[in-house]
Amino acid sequence: MDWREQSTANCSVARTLEVIGEKWTILVLREVFNGVRRFDDIQRHIGIPRPILSDRLHRLLDGGVLRRIEYREPGQRARHEYRLTETGLELQTVLLSLMEWGDRHPAGAGGPARVVRHRGCGAPVHVALVCEAGHSVASPRDVVGEDGPGARQLTA
Amino acid sequence: MDWREQSTANCSVARTLEVIGEKWTILVLREVFNGVRRFDDIQRHIGIPRPILSDRLHRLLDGGVLRRIEYREPGQRARHEYRLTETGLELQTVLLSLMEWGDRHPAGAGGPARVVRHRGCGAPVHVALVCEAGHSVASPRDVVGEDGPGARQLTA
Repeated sequence: MDWREQSTANCSVARTLEVIGEKWTILVLREVFNGVRRFDDIQRHIGIPRPILSDRLHRLLDGGVLRRIEYREPGQRARHEYRLTETGLELQTVLLSLMEWGDRHPAGAGGPARVVRHRGCGAPVHVALVCEAGHSVASPRDVVGEDGPGARQLTA
Repeated sequence: MDWREQSTANCSVARTLEVIGEKWTILVLREVFNGVRRFDDIQRHIGIPRPILSDRLHRLLDGGVLRRIEYREPGQRARHEYRLTETGLELQTVLLSLMEWGDRHPAGAGGPARVVRHRGCGAPVHVALVCEAGHSVASPRDVVGEDGPGARQLTA
């Protein structure tokens, strides 16, 4: 099917963007992946307006990406911290792909601000494409998109 | 350095989001990765308002992600089509990460709308994490973030 004739109603890129589809949401996820899990800490570090942060956290809770855990500091009322669910952890390649591209392209002076290493061996980790036959995909041009089982005709 | 004390002014995730940081822009890239390169074709397929599409294409041109090629249909005025630059092609892992997550999580009825295969061998392609020592990273928990050479203290 010509891509222009294929319905995008069930497109998986679009579906993901419904959960994490704008800048603040992805920056909130960046914080949580970096171990910053409390509302005030996230708010201060990103400089995000509080009502927007509250809205984005709720969207991520609704989308099953974050879960909320209660904690209580001595003498304080109960508060919540936000942790990645298993589903949320699987967004790691999205975050690391964004980071790697930014490391290379609108290249920052002084090198990357953050490096990600393999736990145990300590070598830097990169995002790669591999095929189910075990080949690593050398170039972006070495992949071909085609209709999946869910492909549907666009209707007017 | 505690992540909360690290400046995010040179964060590579944020830098990438300055170029591709909202839903429409990523959907425009999805079209171009699928070979849809002309303004009217993109506009019709996504249903994006024309002024927004024009703005997003300019942002992608300015960011070095797309380049513009002139073409002329018989009897028509010259028009442009939009192609990925080498820099733009390197966003492929971002798009494929978004697609894979969407394939799995807010799971679509009937399976994925789109499948990506290794050119030549034909096996389905997936996004993976590999370390420079050649290990494939088995779990999202097997990576550790640390300060990179560009890490800077947050200033108030």
